Amino acid sequence: MAIKHVVLFKFKDGTPDATIGELIEGYKALPGKIDVMRHFEWGADVSVEDLHQGFTHCFITTFADAAGRDAYIPHQAHQDYVKVLLPHLDKLLVLDFEPQVVK
Amino acid sequence: MAIKHVVLFKFKDGTPDATIGELIEGYKALPGKIDVMRHFEWGADVSVEDLHQGFTHCFITTFADAAGRDAYIPHQAHQDYVKVLLPHLDKLLVLDFEPQVVK
Repeated sequence: MAIKHVVLFKFKDGTPDATIGELIEGYKALPGKIDVMRHFEWGADVSVEDLHQGFTHCFITTFADAAGRDAYIPHQAHQDYVKVLLPHLDKLLVLDFEPQVVK
Repeated sequence: MAIKHVVLFKFKDGTPDATIGELIEGYKALPGKIDVMRHFEWGADVSVEDLHQGFTHCFITTFADAAGRDAYIPHQAHQDYVKVLLPHLDKLLVLDFEPQVVK
């Protein structure tokens, strides 16, 4: 069963826009390096309900199955990215789910 | 531009499974009542990185555009559902983004 891997970022206060841009580009480069990332989309928060708990960016990767996700996590390209990313994050949330499509 | 509306729930400790099931069914019923919900999928957390910050369920609604999202929020069926839901939630996160598909 497919897995959707939802990742939310909140950057540390004062992180320069240029740095945020570079880190987003770094994430966007991963699907080109990691085959098991079957689909990848992202965007900045545009919500209007003020329930985003400070998170400002969402990234959703789709894996074909749990084995794909399990290959992604320790993948060197992913680990290299995480090492560069984490010092700039105030909060990080990752939730995976097996999508049940209702409509 | 389309909007993806990502919603995460953490139910209060002790919420009976039957209640959780009813509340999920309530959310799943909304796309049948609210036309602007163009696509709706959901699932329980199956992540393995322990970064889900206590959230246990993810629901993603796709709207055709911001006008769709803006029609959804005050829709009576949505508001009725929120009234039933909120007393059972410990945490709620809502983040909307305009999906940029990389792969």
